[in-house]
Amino acid sequence: MAPMNLCLPGKPVDVLHTGAWTAKAISELKKGILHNIAASTESEKFSRIPRKGEIKFSPDASYVHICTNNTIEGTQWTTLPETGNVALVADMSSDIASRPVDVKKFGLIFAGAQKNLGPSGVTIVILRKDLAERADKNLPTLLQYRTHIKENSLYHTPPTFAVYVVGLVLEWIESEGGVQGMEKRNEAKANLLYGAIEASGGFYYCPVENSSRSKMNVVFRVGGGDELMEKQFASEAAAAGLVGTPGHRSVGGMRVSLYNAVEPAAVEALTSFMREFQRTRG
Amino acid sequence: MAPMNLCLPGKPVDVLHTGAWTAKAISELKKGILHNIAASTESEKFSRIPRKGEIKFSPDASYVHICTNNTIEGTQWTTLPETGNVALVADMSSDIASRPVDVKKFGLIFAGAQKNLGPSGVTIVILRKDLAERADKNLPTLLQYRTHIKENSLYHTPPTFAVYVVGLVLEWIESEGGVQGMEKRNEAKANLLYGAIEASGGFYYCPVENSSRSKMNVVFRVGGGDELMEKQFASEAAAAGLVGTPGHRSVGGMRVSLYNAVEPAAVEALTSFMREFQRTRG
Repeated sequence: MAPMNLCLPGKPVDVLHTGAWTAKAISELKKGILHNIAASTESEKFSRIPRKGEIKFSPDASYVHICTNNTIEGTQWTTLPETGNVALVADMSSDIASRPVDVKKFGLIFAGAQKNLGPSGVTIVILRKDLAERADKNLPTLLQYRTHIKENSLYHTPPTFAVYVVGLVLEWIESEGGVQGMEKRNEAKANLLYGAIEASGGFYYCPVENSSRSKMNVVFRVGGGDELMEKQFASEAAAAGLVGTPGHRSVGGMRVSLYNAVEPAAVEALTSFMREFQRTRG
Repeated sequence: MAPMNLCLPGKPVDVLHTGAWTAKAISELKKGILHNIAASTESEKFSRIPRKGEIKFSPDASYVHICTNNTIEGTQWTTLPETGNVALVADMSSDIASRPVDVKKFGLIFAGAQKNLGPSGVTIVILRKDLAERADKNLPTLLQYRTHIKENSLYHTPPTFAVYVVGLVLEWIESEGGVQGMEKRNEAKANLLYGAIEASGGFYYCPVENSSRSKMNVVFRVGGGDELMEKQFASEAAAAGLVGTPGHRSVGGMRVSLYNAVEPAAVEALTSFMREFQRTRG
């Protein structure tokens, strides 16, 4: 919906290309929408977020598209790119509400609820109101952001149960200290896991550059990237109740997600398992 | 999505205009899609479904659009229009699974689940596979029916909880004799309520022509359309536990929905209340 609603004639969409999700955005833009890859770390297998000096924005972009957290590659923007007067559009599906963000810095934030906020079936949209007026009124009514503003998100029957559960999750986040509380909790979990990886003397290693490491999705390799040992790791972890450790099939290795709902105790159980696994193989 | 996916260049969409839902479809088509109102009963306040002889199809339509049940007007197609080789596209949101239909007669059926099949947030689509190939591949991937066929409805994270509940509702429908069982149950409820209206000697009346009456949404007036008395009816009914009887604000009067989940006993309670209300006012 972002390109349909926010593109200005003759003004490209600037994309900061950081992995599978921005690749999907780019393949949609390729269907006839003017765009520019303002930076890409594809040549480094997306093992980091672009550095400030590498980014080449268009002088007249419609907006800048980023994905704040890259689930498959295990990277996350820690410092937002400076886009000046150009609206920053962020796919925040996998790290919304995991840390405080200054919403005033964004033109548009969109996020599926199913990682940090509730059940699948709801998308959260935070939009600077004036941007909703860019859209052609001949777009299908349902696909115009202005429709949902005007109708208070009730243009069509909303997914009531999922919205209700998101409300409950937001109450829980508040009771845990809000997004500040979530940030603390998520940092503690991430530090514990990255710390265990670093302390393994190379038995485990994280291919992601330090400053780009995601606090939501930790990717790492086992035994120096030994695929057989990684299979054993996954199956023994599962037997110990630690399920879902294999990474995305497109990158291999292991991936552990630390979304808001993951309890610190679960990460402790994992790091204990990791030490024990290494002891028996190392 | 239907016009985006199914329109053929230069070939109009034929619409059978029967009320508020087809009006919405027409206002979307007016945004630049060739279309033709093949029949309309607007001049009769949509108090009936168009008769066979009134329908004027285009010789070369892309498809024919109908709404099988009109929730606000209380009308329903009992016999489907004959569209020959032209695909019939049906918005079946408010009567899907309420009665058997021959799906082979349709090019496309779409229906929100929230009336007869489960919670809001799921849309059921039944599509003749060849029609999915009409769409321009430059449409956004998400908006192409072929994407959802290819990806087994898993192109994006589906609304899992709602899908699960739809599964439970389908099991319940099966246990009640399937759509044949639903039809029997719904006919019995509708006959009971329309019978009570007819037996009131005009105190209650249904503005909808007999053969067009919906078995899902029964609209009727009270006291010859006396709005004050209708307000009293609604508030006394609510006090007796029969809530939600007022009709849509655009048409006034009363409206009672008899979706699959409504128990026959609820309709019996309503007809008893109606007789008692009439006795005290008649």
